[in-house]
Amino acid sequence: MISRHDPQLKSFASDNYAGVHPEILRAIADANGGHQIAYGDDVYTEALREVFQRHFGERAQAWPVFNGTAANVVSLRAMTAHWEAVICPESAHIHTDEGGAPEVVGGIKLLTVPTPDGKLTPELIDRQAWGFGDVHRPQPRVVSISNTTELGTLYTPEEIAAVCAHAHDRGLLVHLDGSRLTNAAAALDVPMRALTTDAGVDVLSFGGTKIGLLYGEAVVVLNPEAATGVDYLRKTFMQLSSKMRFVSAQFEALLSGDLWLRNARQANAMGQRLAAAVRDIPGVELPRPVEANAVFAVLPREVTERLQKRFRFYTWNEATGEVRWMCAFDTTEADVDAFAAAIREEMR
Amino acid sequence: MISRHDPQLKSFASDNYAGVHPEILRAIADANGGHQIAYGDDVYTEALREVFQRHFGERAQAWPVFNGTAANVVSLRAMTAHWEAVICPESAHIHTDEGGAPEVVGGIKLLTVPTPDGKLTPELIDRQAWGFGDVHRPQPRVVSISNTTELGTLYTPEEIAAVCAHAHDRGLLVHLDGSRLTNAAAALDVPMRALTTDAGVDVLSFGGTKIGLLYGEAVVVLNPEAATGVDYLRKTFMQLSSKMRFVSAQFEALLSGDLWLRNARQANAMGQRLAAAVRDIPGVELPRPVEANAVFAVLPREVTERLQKRFRFYTWNEATGEVRWMCAFDTTEADVDAFAAAIREEMR
Amino acid sequence: MISRHDPQLKSFASDNYAGVHPEILRAIADANGGHQIAYGDDVYTEALREVFQRHFGERAQAWPVFNGTAANVVSLRAMTAHWEAVICPESAHIHTDEGGAPEVVGGIKLLTVPTPDGKLTPELIDRQAWGFGDVHRPQPRVVSISNTTELGTLYTPEEIAAVCAHAHDRGLLVHLDGSRLTNAAAALDVPMRALTTDAGVDVLSFGGTKIGLLYGEAVVVLNPEAATGVDYLRKTFMQLSSKMRFVSAQFEALLSGDLWLRNARQANAMGQRLAAAVRDIPGVELPRPVEANAVFAVLPREVTERLQKRFRFYTWNEATGEVRWMCAFDTTEADVDAFAAAIREEMR
Amino acid sequence: MISRHDPQLKSFASDNYAGVHPEILRAIADANGGHQIAYGDDVYTEALREVFQRHFGERAQAWPVFNGTAANVVSLRAMTAHWEAVICPESAHIHTDEGGAPEVVGGIKLLTVPTPDGKLTPELIDRQAWGFGDVHRPQPRVVSISNTTELGTLYTPEEIAAVCAHAHDRGLLVHLDGSRLTNAAAALDVPMRALTTDAGVDVLSFGGTKIGLLYGEAVVVLNPEAATGVDYLRKTFMQLSSKMRFVSAQFEALLSGDLWLRNARQANAMGQRLAAAVRDIPGVELPRPVEANAVFAVLPREVTERLQKRFRFYTWNEATGEVRWMCAFDTTEADVDAFAAAIREEMR
Repeated sequence: MISRHDPQLKSFASDNYAGVHPEILRAIADANGGHQIAYGDDVYTEALREVFQRHFGERAQAWPVFNGTAANVVSLRAMTAHWEAVICPESAHIHTDEGGAPEVVGGIKLLTVPTPDGKLTPELIDRQAWGFGDVHRPQPRVVSISNTTELGTLYTPEEIAAVCAHAHDRGLLVHLDGSRLTNAAAALDVPMRALTTDAGVDVLSFGGTKIGLLYGEAVVVLNPEAATGVDYLRKTFMQLSSKMRFVSAQFEALLSGDLWLRNARQANAMGQRLAAAVRDIPGVELPRPVEANAVFAVLPREVTERLQKRFRFYTWNEATGEVRWMCAFDTTEADVDAFAAAIREEMR
Repeated sequence: MISRHDPQLKSFASDNYAGVHPEILRAIADANGGHQIAYGDDVYTEALREVFQRHFGERAQAWPVFNGTAANVVSLRAMTAHWEAVICPESAHIHTDEGGAPEVVGGIKLLTVPTPDGKLTPELIDRQAWGFGDVHRPQPRVVSISNTTELGTLYTPEEIAAVCAHAHDRGLLVHLDGSRLTNAAAALDVPMRALTTDAGVDVLSFGGTKIGLLYGEAVVVLNPEAATGVDYLRKTFMQLSSKMRFVSAQFEALLSGDLWLRNARQANAMGQRLAAAVRDIPGVELPRPVEANAVFAVLPREVTERLQKRFRFYTWNEATGEVRWMCAFDTTEADVDAFAAAIREEMR
Repeated sequence: MISRHDPQLKSFASDNYAGVHPEILRAIADANGGHQIAYGDDVYTEALREVFQRHFGERAQAWPVFNGTAANVVSLRAMTAHWEAVICPESAHIHTDEGGAPEVVGGIKLLTVPTPDGKLTPELIDRQAWGFGDVHRPQPRVVSISNTTELGTLYTPEEIAAVCAHAHDRGLLVHLDGSRLTNAAAALDVPMRALTTDAGVDVLSFGGTKIGLLYGEAVVVLNPEAATGVDYLRKTFMQLSSKMRFVSAQFEALLSGDLWLRNARQANAMGQRLAAAVRDIPGVELPRPVEANAVFAVLPREVTERLQKRFRFYTWNEATGEVRWMCAFDTTEADVDAFAAAIREEMR
Repeated sequence: MISRHDPQLKSFASDNYAGVHPEILRAIADANGGHQIAYGDDVYTEALREVFQRHFGERAQAWPVFNGTAANVVSLRAMTAHWEAVICPESAHIHTDEGGAPEVVGGIKLLTVPTPDGKLTPELIDRQAWGFGDVHRPQPRVVSISNTTELGTLYTPEEIAAVCAHAHDRGLLVHLDGSRLTNAAAALDVPMRALTTDAGVDVLSFGGTKIGLLYGEAVVVLNPEAATGVDYLRKTFMQLSSKMRFVSAQFEALLSGDLWLRNARQANAMGQRLAAAVRDIPGVELPRPVEANAVFAVLPREVTERLQKRFRFYTWNEATGEVRWMCAFDTTEADVDAFAAAIREEMR
């Protein structure tokens, strides 16, 4: 088979439009050949434990799954009883973009809170953290936040610590959807554990696909008392990979050195470069802070339409004309500059 | 990263202990680089439609998913209303080995039938195909069979046609779990459509992982009137791969030429070679026909224990001492001969 | 057994604190004795069809269930495929007070909209009626409204018609939670079909318990094309009463004459009487229109506390000090006057 | 309303064809009038605790629900985690006659065992009690038995104790579907606790409807360590009655004196009388022991058809021509004698 596509073509649509980082592909090839025990009893998965512990502390345990929706649903299900519910921002990916998986497949009720910037605070949590012991009300049990958020914003370690302290105070556990945790840590220049384990997060969905893996996310239990049955749930929720050695090998390649950081820094830097390059174009407005690899912009609808014929990206909000430009680990300075030039051109 | 394992070491435990066929790895590499639309709107997935149609007829449409459990659950859910149930053999993988996913995640009731050889017949179907219109009884709607079966046996095209004719007569649809359909077709020396579309099967779970893919199975709807909402169900059931181009590229590499057939023939031939090599060893009994790549044997428990220290394989039935030896696409004549020699040695 | 309670004591907590209307009890007694086919094939249930058709039109079909949560969940499940979602007000009973049953038991995603008064409008519906065909977004399929609403407000026939027209235009169906539909019709002095069938409602949860039944609600399908499998869903969702003759006999007693209307008028009139009696008390504020049998009031917290020692009622909003006073079919003028006097007294 | 049916007409179809015992109806009337706190905080429900404790021991706690399917599903869900399964006879009501509620609504996998007489034994339990710790296999957690069974047979206290001891030994809990526990206790002339608490049963579904209630079953937790969240599950599973005082008052009337025993003895005695009256009729075969209120018989199909025009009863097994005759608490000697005479007549 020859390649069916132009491997030079980049987009600004999503970081999962990117392919696989060459070091990840090499890790898959290295793990190939011969037979390994299926379903996670292989030597690569065994080695993974220590890799995750190095990043998230000695109590951390990781269970690779196929995708982010699954990491979230398995995490939340492992943290809740049948009658317990999850508090999350109205903009949370679990609420808006997972095809209803938490409710339909997981049987989990979400209690949403509108936020200005995709971030929960103790005050916002309290909008839903009530009714404990009332059988009529789905019982709040987990607070779920994302870092970076769907709106490209960041929680600092202090903000997460405040969320966790408040949640724990209320008898709630904290789940963090970290499909872009690497980007957050790189942007803040802190180790990932500062944003998770050290801040009090109980369970983490760790994202690999958007930062260069072929496929693979992980349920990472940071507080073993906060989750039960992940082993079984992963299987029952159809997330147990038979040839798991290859998922684990990818994670090892990503996390044992600094590949995760290099990739995240590149994506973030390209976001900053893009923001800097367009901020002064008359008529282009950047309504949100650019904190990691996402740039939100408002520009005239006809410009968006012309631009989308040249570069792929998504309209975020049909009503306001806001668009989202996403940079990936493989976005280059040349990609950004070409895109920025096109924007400038179309805005004339 | 260097390889953590001995790539020469083979087992007879399962065909998913094997790794990835080199042509598949190459297809992944060829599909890499640049950006492609995520979630299935890429050129590789587009090309896949025609590939599946060539094998399964013009009405066939395939939806790649991550694993076999998911292919089965999404298939069955797309074929049933909330109150409808699935008739399957007691030995069916969906019943015994999927962690309860059909019931727990899919909300689907299974109605099981004991079989001598893992195969349903019209008579056996009728053991559960009754009670239509009675609200107290979960309403039978689908007959689910596997080819090859969990017991290594095969349905011929005629047998499947008989199952389908009878099922359709009763107002039932037919699902085929084809996690080893390639092995079945190769063993019978018929095209895959003879065992599926042409025999009347409505929906197929097509297996890629066991025959050389890194990961990837597919829900293949053969009769468009038999399934609804697969697009949505795949997402909701957490099976929508973001970088789907790589799953599709693997399937294309497997199915556009004869890789599937070469791999299946190799696995089957090794099964026959192994059976031939051990059949005359005094004390070794082969209680089931060896029809594809699985060999079932009964041997003394202490022999099994000693053998398992040298080669990995599973005890199938603790009570009877029956074991299962599985050959994979990468099992070689030398692997088989070494294993057969070891069996002969330990039986002395 | 002697009575364990004071049958004179009334409350203003909820209309389901009331007991059973004597005519309903008599109907149960009349249906007693001898044997009748269980599970709904009895002569009382047979007779019920015509009774509901008289109120809701010739296409109406009713399925009695045990309680209101079940009427809602069975209705919504019968109207949706697995991947389809329900748009409802943030204050909807299905969202706030059913223990998560729609999601946990029904597997149904709710898409909520904040409203000023518990009522949806075409504009508010459009806040969630988008994303059709996008597999990432739970697909909107049903608009669910309540009449009277959780906030005691009413939709007029015209308002419901506007909701239905808009919903149908968008390809959505309409469900009406009519646990207090009788109160709404009585308050507006219109037949119940003006608020349902004639306005375009597709499926109705009809409430009996709050208006004088011992137990019993009904799923009423007004548009047969809008719901499938209610027969089966009722059983599977654990709502098939074995001795159904008694549920049906109650509904017949309620609906074949004017008992429903007498009861609803009484409850509503008592709501108006209470509002009139307290409206001029200095320091008592009625922040919402009193349209049926619910009166919402804001009064000093310490007054609420003293009053609750004398009469049972609920604080509706801890933050604002708003309370809810509910009148039932058996609330008398004397009950209201005594309560109003107590309020006046405590406010001094 | 006048009665629509002939209150003299009896059937032998099922004990839930019967109506309500007059003492139960009186209890409902006595509990009527005035207001009582809804949803179970009333004085009747409060009193119920002690009533159940008297029968089932001091640790027993009862939660009334609407029907038997619900009692079973709530019980089993309260005893299991998401990945845990229930072992039951192939003839169990939860498997055959609950519309798939355990799987579809509860998400609970059943592992069935064929039995000769509807009864499990330690040996039969072991047919499914294996695979602990294997994530591929739904994890056995509960053994569910019925007394009396669907086949009209009885477990003695010793047999139940043996089942419980074995189950507990294997780390399994025991659920007893006691929709006809009263009949079993009466037939064996033992207190109900001998068949439940004292024998080691952990959770009981206690049946009221078939023994004279209008409606009402109960989840009775005998071992508080065996079930969690029943309060919440009852609500979420749509089983929380708003006017619960009336369910509780019925249970009190049934259980505080000997009404349950009188009713059960009557039904059982009529079963014996019927068996005795027909046993010697040539051509009538009673293939199962008559141990409580069910009589199974095999007779010529044409006789069955003629008889069914005169008396309502069910064919149990179309293939063998076996029929089931069920006696209720209100079946009289005259009813039995008339039926037996008809059988004799039709057999001539």
